[in-house]
Amino acid sequence: MGATEFRLRCSVLQAVLFEFLGPTAVLLLSCPDQPGVVAAVSDFVWQNGGNIIHAEQHTDTSQSDPDTPGLFFQRVEFELTGFAVPREQLAEAFQPIADRFNMDVLIRCSDELPRLAVLASKAPHCLIDLLSRWHMGELAANLVLVASNHPDHRQLCEFFGVPFYELPVGDSPADQDQAMQDLLRSMSIEQIVLARYMRVLSPEFVEKWPNRIINIHHSFLPAFVGANPYRQALERGVKVIGATAHFVTADLDKGPIISQDVAPISHRDGVVELTRKGRDLEVVVLARALEAHLDHRVLPYGNRTVVFH
Amino acid sequence: MGATEFRLRCSVLQAVLFEFLGPTAVLLLSCPDQPGVVAAVSDFVWQNGGNIIHAEQHTDTSQSDPDTPGLFFQRVEFELTGFAVPREQLAEAFQPIADRFNMDVLIRCSDELPRLAVLASKAPHCLIDLLSRWHMGELAANLVLVASNHPDHRQLCEFFGVPFYELPVGDSPADQDQAMQDLLRSMSIEQIVLARYMRVLSPEFVEKWPNRIINIHHSFLPAFVGANPYRQALERGVKVIGATAHFVTADLDKGPIISQDVAPISHRDGVVELTRKGRDLEVVVLARALEAHLDHRVLPYGNRTVVFH
Amino acid sequence: MGATEFRLRCSVLQAVLFEFLGPTAVLLLSCPDQPGVVAAVSDFVWQNGGNIIHAEQHTDTSQSDPDTPGLFFQRVEFELTGFAVPREQLAEAFQPIADRFNMDVLIRCSDELPRLAVLASKAPHCLIDLLSRWHMGELAANLVLVASNHPDHRQLCEFFGVPFYELPVGDSPADQDQAMQDLLRSMSIEQIVLARYMRVLSPEFVEKWPNRIINIHHSFLPAFVGANPYRQALERGVKVIGATAHFVTADLDKGPIISQDVAPISHRDGVVELTRKGRDLEVVVLARALEAHLDHRVLPYGNRTVVFH
Amino acid sequence: MGATEFRLRCSVLQAVLFEFLGPTAVLLLSCPDQPGVVAAVSDFVWQNGGNIIHAEQHTDTSQSDPDTPGLFFQRVEFELTGFAVPREQLAEAFQPIADRFNMDVLIRCSDELPRLAVLASKAPHCLIDLLSRWHMGELAANLVLVASNHPDHRQLCEFFGVPFYELPVGDSPADQDQAMQDLLRSMSIEQIVLARYMRVLSPEFVEKWPNRIINIHHSFLPAFVGANPYRQALERGVKVIGATAHFVTADLDKGPIISQDVAPISHRDGVVELTRKGRDLEVVVLARALEAHLDHRVLPYGNRTVVFH
Repeated sequence: MGATEFRLRCSVLQAVLFEFLGPTAVLLLSCPDQPGVVAAVSDFVWQNGGNIIHAEQHTDTSQSDPDTPGLFFQRVEFELTGFAVPREQLAEAFQPIADRFNMDVLIRCSDELPRLAVLASKAPHCLIDLLSRWHMGELAANLVLVASNHPDHRQLCEFFGVPFYELPVGDSPADQDQAMQDLLRSMSIEQIVLARYMRVLSPEFVEKWPNRIINIHHSFLPAFVGANPYRQALERGVKVIGATAHFVTADLDKGPIISQDVAPISHRDGVVELTRKGRDLEVVVLARALEAHLDHRVLPYGNRTVVFH
Repeated sequence: MGATEFRLRCSVLQAVLFEFLGPTAVLLLSCPDQPGVVAAVSDFVWQNGGNIIHAEQHTDTSQSDPDTPGLFFQRVEFELTGFAVPREQLAEAFQPIADRFNMDVLIRCSDELPRLAVLASKAPHCLIDLLSRWHMGELAANLVLVASNHPDHRQLCEFFGVPFYELPVGDSPADQDQAMQDLLRSMSIEQIVLARYMRVLSPEFVEKWPNRIINIHHSFLPAFVGANPYRQALERGVKVIGATAHFVTADLDKGPIISQDVAPISHRDGVVELTRKGRDLEVVVLARALEAHLDHRVLPYGNRTVVFH
Repeated sequence: MGATEFRLRCSVLQAVLFEFLGPTAVLLLSCPDQPGVVAAVSDFVWQNGGNIIHAEQHTDTSQSDPDTPGLFFQRVEFELTGFAVPREQLAEAFQPIADRFNMDVLIRCSDELPRLAVLASKAPHCLIDLLSRWHMGELAANLVLVASNHPDHRQLCEFFGVPFYELPVGDSPADQDQAMQDLLRSMSIEQIVLARYMRVLSPEFVEKWPNRIINIHHSFLPAFVGANPYRQALERGVKVIGATAHFVTADLDKGPIISQDVAPISHRDGVVELTRKGRDLEVVVLARALEAHLDHRVLPYGNRTVVFH
Repeated sequence: MGATEFRLRCSVLQAVLFEFLGPTAVLLLSCPDQPGVVAAVSDFVWQNGGNIIHAEQHTDTSQSDPDTPGLFFQRVEFELTGFAVPREQLAEAFQPIADRFNMDVLIRCSDELPRLAVLASKAPHCLIDLLSRWHMGELAANLVLVASNHPDHRQLCEFFGVPFYELPVGDSPADQDQAMQDLLRSMSIEQIVLARYMRVLSPEFVEKWPNRIINIHHSFLPAFVGANPYRQALERGVKVIGATAHFVTADLDKGPIISQDVAPISHRDGVVELTRKGRDLEVVVLARALEAHLDHRVLPYGNRTVVFH
């Protein structure tokens, strides 16, 4: 089977899924904790003839003093088929509830896939994995392009049918940063994954996609910030190594963490072995974070995240 | 600090918690999946002036044919302080909703601790761990007694201030089984934990506490049912060992699983090492299952369980 | 960078490694436990001017009665550069020691890569992963060919520069089995990986590559032998799923286990989610087992394995 | 069974083990990497009629420049029964080999148990666990005493038959530190465990037991050094928490790491839940490190450790 058929199969698979289950809408909301929110939201769905297929909520009281309310978070997913409000009027219809409870609300439909770009450098493992998952229909996104500061992965991306852009750094890192921003904006990219992309993004870059750029760092943050975390791990003599997927902020390696995992190591493992074992971690941790984000299950707040199931 | 002070501290700790948070009520319900359930339940709480502090739901569609509805499960926890319905009338007040949606409902208040008994034999590790956790205030239960077919743990239980009963098997296993039932009934025991209790309970015993007896089996069920699972594991040459906490049913080692975990082993590990490593697993897996159950987060159905967070 | 350059880089990487470290020889031996074995083997290396860079041993006494000796296993790796015995005479030179202690001995040199074949069916995840690892220089083998009962992965294999053979089953499973054997023998294949190959090999097939065929089964064996293990896992209501890499024997899913791992699941996970989560396990467990085997660190005996580090 | 019988059983168990296996000697050595070490050591055992039951070695080349040799580490365990050299002359007999290869050597016999002290403060979980393990015969040590800056655990220790010393801090932390040193020296303590002992030891204290004081820190070091690591973890929004057992050095939380592990957490977990989940980690990580150390499997070098199996 060729690459075109690959992609066809993928599209067919998703079409079948939507036909079987029907498309759904997701409400992802946060507001000050107060009585009546859950009742108001579920009543909204019920009064309009919807069926809730998934609902989860969380209240964070950890950072508030006793006199201020906690923060309330909720994710509600319901079937769009037969829903009384057309999808293009959902936001408007929900606005009175949002106003009443002072909510931040995000509304997404499962069949409207966000436009996704992957940025990579020389290391291929995360990129190959994401291309494979996308190809198997696991990522709820349109993978619009792969961009890199190196030419290495052109053929790989072409094999999977994804346009590849090379933007070499050359003499001017600032120019390359700007060119990358221009490319992503011209292609209307909504979500970005740094799949071991070895460039630090400028603050201007980061603030254009707030909480929509996911990076994989190859340590269990906050340990081993910065360059060569496996070398740092070896020198500290730790017995586990880790990987951390997080939203990118202007502050390097300090953004809200979405997913983390570790693997045991021993004195036998040198930098080569750590790098090898780490690759398997990085791949899975990044994919897990991206899948959660694309399913609208991740709510960043301050320097933390709520990750619903 | 002596044992009495230990227990005092424990009680004080829980009292402080209740005063701080106030007592809560938990609705644990299941019914055929249908629109409007979530709205009805949250409306019930809201109309009576309650504040939902935790809500989670699940719909199982895996076993239904397309023409029958799935099964809906929900856990709703709300503050009792200021709730319009007195706690002793909660069941009655909720009954119309239960009838309308054909629900099975369990209602529990966080400050009404169930009467718990632990059954043990010779191995001390799970028993010591449960006594420690109870002593530290981690178990939401009144630990009323420990019973055993051996005398070994009397002094240990007395140290922690828990009455100990020895019921030796002697010539008649059936008599001992009956005597144990009689003891537990006479003490109004509601929940039972088998902490490596090496007797098989009679079917009559089991059916008196349906889904209220939790056992720890030292393998990752369904592998290695029955006696000597570590010996079986060694002979099969597995590279992980496990432990499984499950509700006891008349069918040995076949009841609904609540919690499972595994640990890696290697060719170096003989039966002695497996037993040692296994102990650490058993202790944690059993405690995790018991804590979930005592927090009213476990809903068994058929041979499976929903375990809410 | 194109596929040819990919492979070139891989070869260059390995060449650099050999030049840096020099090639090594591995003695992998087993014999009845008896005093003097370790001294004799290390003396052999020392007397011939070799430097041992890795040595590990194990004695299994678990299955012996007190009157028979245990089984002794050892892996010794030493530098070939400057070793007094030329590599083609190593076996002969070591024979007196092997005879004296009644040893089974395997001698391998790190720069003589075994000829490896991967067999796959429709599921691509393990195959893509093995191709990626081989391409990154992680597998100490010559990946000679991929063979399948389906045509799907031709283009994928060609991209990575690996010849692809389609051997459809058609009307005669026995003929296909025979054709596969013929292909593998004609290509002098020494090691075989079943990367989710969905055919049961005939006993004749299996006995031609004893302990040289590795399979990945998507459960924590011995649980859920046979077809549809994720469906079986769901029906039993387990809280972990697993994957097992093992040598293939005539007895289905019963061969010596090399590697196992598990992942936690919850009531939320249906067959689709189990299959997804399972894929990540299968990929890593199979790769870990294959890498250990290709590094000559795996010693099967009876139904078990010693896996050195 | 009372506490005295408990201890009797423990002693009997170990006596049975020694009778069955016989006592063993362990050589734990390190030296510059050079050919001939393995042969010399195994020859020493062999020539004196010993049988090696466990041998493991490691060469660390990670920190050396190409012109200096790596570091070689080895652990060799052999049966003492029938060994030609009496145990009290072992060190002398081995000295020529140690001199020849410029070795650091530690020689220990399995039936000569080191004198162990446990230091604790108010948190009971690690202390109860260590007392339980010692009571079950899992710790190869004489647990001589428990000392604390608080009176809380006196009754607990007395129950397990271990003398308890209270050394309150009062007005002078320096005096308490000195009193603790005096106590430990007067009781000839060789190994010390800090089981959540909340005092920082003075540099003078630490240097009297170099690499013989093990501490448990409740984070995955080097993350969250210092006080309140769970609070720090919550504020950083990590998705795993950890525990680290390490040798104590004058530099707080910076000593050589022996054992580490982590557990997954979620946004639902506040400080109370982190503390609870963390306890289960701390208990196991500390026990694992202590057992390895008491089995003479841990070799610290610089800021790192070799931990043999």
